[in-house]
Amino acid sequence: MPRNQQILLDNRPQGEATAGNFRLVASDTPALQDGQVLVRHHYLSLDPYMRGRMNEGKSYAACQSLGQVMIGGTVGEVAESRHPAWAVGDAVVGMGGWQEYSVVDGNAPGLLRKVDTSHVPLSYYLGAVGMPGVTAWYGLVQIIDPKPGETLVVSAASGAVGSAFGALAKARGCRVVGIAGGPDKCHYVTDELGFDACIDHRAHGDLKSMAAALKEACPDGIDGHFENVGGHILDAVLLRANAFARVALCGMIAGYDGQPLPLHNPALILINRMKIEGFIVSEQMQVWPQALAELGALVASGRLRPRESIAQGLAAAPEAFLGLLKGKNFGKQLVKLI
Amino acid sequence: MPRNQQILLDNRPQGEATAGNFRLVASDTPALQDGQVLVRHHYLSLDPYMRGRMNEGKSYAACQSLGQVMIGGTVGEVAESRHPAWAVGDAVVGMGGWQEYSVVDGNAPGLLRKVDTSHVPLSYYLGAVGMPGVTAWYGLVQIIDPKPGETLVVSAASGAVGSAFGALAKARGCRVVGIAGGPDKCHYVTDELGFDACIDHRAHGDLKSMAAALKEACPDGIDGHFENVGGHILDAVLLRANAFARVALCGMIAGYDGQPLPLHNPALILINRMKIEGFIVSEQMQVWPQALAELGALVASGRLRPRESIAQGLAAAPEAFLGLLKGKNFGKQLVKLI
Repeated sequence: MPRNQQILLDNRPQGEATAGNFRLVASDTPALQDGQVLVRHHYLSLDPYMRGRMNEGKSYAACQSLGQVMIGGTVGEVAESRHPAWAVGDAVVGMGGWQEYSVVDGNAPGLLRKVDTSHVPLSYYLGAVGMPGVTAWYGLVQIIDPKPGETLVVSAASGAVGSAFGALAKARGCRVVGIAGGPDKCHYVTDELGFDACIDHRAHGDLKSMAAALKEACPDGIDGHFENVGGHILDAVLLRANAFARVALCGMIAGYDGQPLPLHNPALILINRMKIEGFIVSEQMQVWPQALAELGALVASGRLRPRESIAQGLAAAPEAFLGLLKGKNFGKQLVKLI
Repeated sequence: MPRNQQILLDNRPQGEATAGNFRLVASDTPALQDGQVLVRHHYLSLDPYMRGRMNEGKSYAACQSLGQVMIGGTVGEVAESRHPAWAVGDAVVGMGGWQEYSVVDGNAPGLLRKVDTSHVPLSYYLGAVGMPGVTAWYGLVQIIDPKPGETLVVSAASGAVGSAFGALAKARGCRVVGIAGGPDKCHYVTDELGFDACIDHRAHGDLKSMAAALKEACPDGIDGHFENVGGHILDAVLLRANAFARVALCGMIAGYDGQPLPLHNPALILINRMKIEGFIVSEQMQVWPQALAELGALVASGRLRPRESIAQGLAAAPEAFLGLLKGKNFGKQLVKLI
């Protein structure tokens, strides 16, 4: 019975989230019952959606309960099994949460998935070939549905979702323009991820400036947009949108901490005959096999090799998470647990 | 060569539109050339979209040129014809504009359409069985795509689009809630148009009050919304929207005169996984035959007999139009020209 460290949600943020919202505890892992599997987590995924779960009230998912282990995606290996379908050493991805081990019902469909690490690094199953990658795929393929030659924009372009979006969009013959924070990330987005252009939102912090930057980067206007951030970026995209432009609304991270951030001029949705659609990829399980197959092939062939930010040890998770919310990470944010 | 009165756009509104933006002129109708048809207009349609055309700048259509006859739908009869397909006395619908006569190229596809007045009054081809009716149909069928039992909301419910929306939605087994201005219109919407409930937006002029009224009228939440107005009504609908709710964005009349009206909390589009889609029915000609067939059948069977506000004589058009923008009309606003 190995010792298991866990991070619980101790109390809810008042405005900005802080390290004091979390609490680290430790206990022995329980003895397995028939049908159960003990998974040792190698990596924990940190994702912006977790901030939304920390708030009380109406959101797209049940809020994270106080005193419970923080929700989160994990990859690891089967450490002990009392279920015939799972063998010790199997590489698995699941939703193990912010802890070192999890006990999983081996019969429950979808809780654990075996993964092949021969061509794809294990950690990528939390990023490019995991939930963030499928998120990019869904927004691009199911909502934006681009034609070759169209211009697409994605905010948070250097992150896990944005980098996958770029590779998927380039594979479809689109012009892809990223938005990211700071010159280092912007250079990474164009030079390493292969975007056609990248706009530094720190250098374009107001609507007018961002709209001008988008005009320069998108001389033919914007046909599709993948929104991870909200706020003045979305306002500016609407000003540069072409007729029949499509917006996949995936994150509104800019508004997590306080008052709602308004959309400045929604009449542009009508003027441009646009479609804006919000989605949660975990409700769209039917697309995962197709999306994961394409993403895995992009990784295996070297066309998608996004960067990772790796924090070391479970205790580092809260600070890494708070940094992610402020854009301090560079690429997919992970916590390495062993 | 009968005398033809015309109303031109003389100058563009600064803020609110006024009668001084228009100018009435008269001239002889020109002699017809081969292939041309002279149409005498019986009714001119007044519609909110015309206000948008009066502004300069980016909109969904070329703006109305200064010094030209105001654009507008008309029904009338062929008064003279030099085209074999059109006979004197044919009842026709077209886009004749704010004038008593128009000369039309009889060969141009779509400019004129013959209509049958045996079961449908001629004026209805400008309303329930015309552009407003097809607008309601498109938003309902192509964007909202409702299931029986769902709750749908429509603003400007007593108007031409709203009344058609109500009849189409009831025919699909939905609960339909209208929003209209004043108790008379609200009673008309429930008692004569057959809506399940109607909210007086004058009695609920702020977000909180409108949201509370929607909660009462839509105890199971809102699954679909047809937006003709914008402003705090759309904000309130987002607060009461169910997961996967759909919004057809057809008009943002509240914002025509001045500064853009913001959308208070666009994060709700994501939280509710909503779709918001703007459209212009004149770009969707492929649906017109199917839509007109259903609307004509609803009228012929008495299930859709909306009210009309009829101004008399072309000179009355500007005041009637300004009244329409302020909600002074009751039902479809027309100008009777003969």
